[in-house]
Amino acid sequence: MGTRRTELKAAAPVSAALVLMALAFSPAHAQARDPLPSWTKGPTKSAIIQFVRSVTTKGSKHYVPPEERIATFDNDGTLWVEQPIYTQVTFMVDRVKELAPQHPEWKTTQPFKALLEGDMKTVAASGKKGIMEMLAATHTGMTAEQFERIVTEWVATARHPKFKRLYTELVYKPQLELMAYLRKNGFKTFIVSGGGIEFMRPWSERVYGVPPEQVVGSSVKSEFQIKDGKPVLVRIPELNFLDDKAGKPVGIYEHIGRRPILAFGNSDSDMQMIQYTKAGDGLRLGLFVHHTDADRE
Amino acid sequence: MGTRRTELKAAAPVSAALVLMALAFSPAHAQARDPLPSWTKGPTKSAIIQFVRSVTTKGSKHYVPPEERIATFDNDGTLWVEQPIYTQVTFMVDRVKELAPQHPEWKTTQPFKALLEGDMKTVAASGKKGIMEMLAATHTGMTAEQFERIVTEWVATARHPKFKRLYTELVYKPQLELMAYLRKNGFKTFIVSGGGIEFMRPWSERVYGVPPEQVVGSSVKSEFQIKDGKPVLVRIPELNFLDDKAGKPVGIYEHIGRRPILAFGNSDSDMQMIQYTKAGDGLRLGLFVHHTDADRE
Repeated sequence: MGTRRTELKAAAPVSAALVLMALAFSPAHAQARDPLPSWTKGPTKSAIIQFVRSVTTKGSKHYVPPEERIATFDNDGTLWVEQPIYTQVTFMVDRVKELAPQHPEWKTTQPFKALLEGDMKTVAASGKKGIMEMLAATHTGMTAEQFERIVTEWVATARHPKFKRLYTELVYKPQLELMAYLRKNGFKTFIVSGGGIEFMRPWSERVYGVPPEQVVGSSVKSEFQIKDGKPVLVRIPELNFLDDKAGKPVGIYEHIGRRPILAFGNSDSDMQMIQYTKAGDGLRLGLFVHHTDADRE
Repeated sequence: MGTRRTELKAAAPVSAALVLMALAFSPAHAQARDPLPSWTKGPTKSAIIQFVRSVTTKGSKHYVPPEERIATFDNDGTLWVEQPIYTQVTFMVDRVKELAPQHPEWKTTQPFKALLEGDMKTVAASGKKGIMEMLAATHTGMTAEQFERIVTEWVATARHPKFKRLYTELVYKPQLELMAYLRKNGFKTFIVSGGGIEFMRPWSERVYGVPPEQVVGSSVKSEFQIKDGKPVLVRIPELNFLDDKAGKPVGIYEHIGRRPILAFGNSDSDMQMIQYTKAGDGLRLGLFVHHTDADRE
C-alpha cells in the first residue's frame, strides 16, 4: 500500500458521535502483543478491540457464542482498491479485447466498438443495457469450471494501471490483519460484495483467507446440463441476484442465514448491510473505510 | 430409530456394480476405535472409511486439502424421516389450522377449506397453484426473525403422527455419526435439501451440527424494509429458488462455490447432485440411502 492513507469512521449508533481516526502503518517498535499492528492507536482501533473482547469474554453481558460471531466485509474499496474503476470492469474490458478476434461484428456494434476503440465515455453511455451485453459476452456461456480458470489466469497476470502490481497485491494490509484477528477470536469472516461472486471466489481464500462458501456477491443464473456425457453447470446470460445496497442484507439472509454482529463497508452500497447489522440485539459494530487519498476521485 | 433398518447403496461409477449393504445398530461390544459404530460391517462402511483415509492421507495420490473436503447431504429421507409426508408439509398444515381463525374466508376457499376439513386428497389435487397459495399464507408476510421463531416453536412441540416423538428426535443416528466423522477429518458438512432453507436453519446446528450458513435449500424471495424505524427482512410470496433435482447442483454452485467430493441422497431428487459430485476430478463418493422399512410406502 506504500504511503497510502485511509481513514476509518465507526458507524456508531445514531445517537452517538461519529468517531474518526487516521489509519497508517505502525512503527517498527509496535508491541508484539498488539493484535492490529498496522492500525494506528485511536478510537476506532480501541472500539474494535473492546468489541472483540466484549463478545468473546464468557460471563460478559455482551458475550456472543462463536457460531454467531459473523463478520461481513464489502470488497471493492474496503478490502482492496476500487480506483480508478472496479477491478471487475477492467477484467471485462480485457476479456472483450481478448475475445474480439472471434467477434468481427463487435467492430460495428456498440458498446463493443467503443470499448475496442478505448472510447470509455460511449461505453458508459450505453448504460445498463450495454453493461448487460458486455457481461453476457464475457461472463456467461461457459461452464463454471471454465469461468473459474479464466478468472484465475487473469488475476495471476493483470496489473493495476497505476500501481503496476497484481490486483491481489493491492489489498489493504490492515484489513487482512483485522480479518485474521477476528478469525482467531472465533469469528467467521464473509465477503459481501456488489461484485460477481464467481469473480472473487477463485482467489478469496488465498488472498483473504475467506473460502468460496463464505463469499456472497452478485451472480448470473446457471444451469445444470449434460455436455458430451459430462454433468456441468453452464453460466446463463441472465442476472440472478444483485448483491448491492438493499440487496446486501438479502444476500446475507440467503447465504448466511444469520445477522452479522460486525460489518465493514466503504460506500452507500454498504449502508443497508450496516443498518441491518446494527439493528440486531446486543452489541454490534459497523465500520466504514473513509478514503482520503488526495488523488482518488 | 428403534429397530429401524435402512439399506445403503453406493452410487458407484457407471461401470461398476452397485454395492448394497444392511445398516443396523452395532452390538454393544463394538470396538471403541470404530468411527462409525452404528454402521454394520460391509462394503459401504468400508468404502466410506477407505475414501476418508485416501483423501486425508498426505502423500496419497487421492489427497484432498481440507478446504476442498465438501460433503453434501440431502435432508428428508437421508438425515431424518420423510414419511408419511414431508415434515414441512405437516408444518404447513399446522400453520393453516393455527391461522384459520384470522382467515374466515378459508372456510369457503380451496385448498384451505379441504385442508381444514382434513380432505388431503382435494388438497393434493390443488396442485402447484394450491401449494403456492398455502406456502404464501404460511411462510411469507412476516420478517425473517418472526419466521425463525415460528419454526423454532413448532419444531419444539410438534410430534410425528406415528412415532409420537419430536421430529428432531427422528434423525438417523448413523448419519449423525457419519457427519461427525467427516468433520473430525476436516470436511465441511452441508445440507442440500429441496425443503425450505429457513425451515431447516433454526435447528440444523443443534440437531446435525450444521450451522445455518451451511444449509442450502429452496427459498422464497425476501425484501429489505424499514418497519417502524427498524431495518428488517420481509418474506415475500414469490418463489426465489427451487433446490431440487437439477436445482441442487445450481444451489451448490451458488452457496458453496465448490464441487463436493462426497454427496449423500435417497431419491431421484438427489440424482443430479450425485452426478455432479462424481463428475469432478479425483476420488469422489456418492451414496444413497435405500429405505427398506416394510411399512414405509
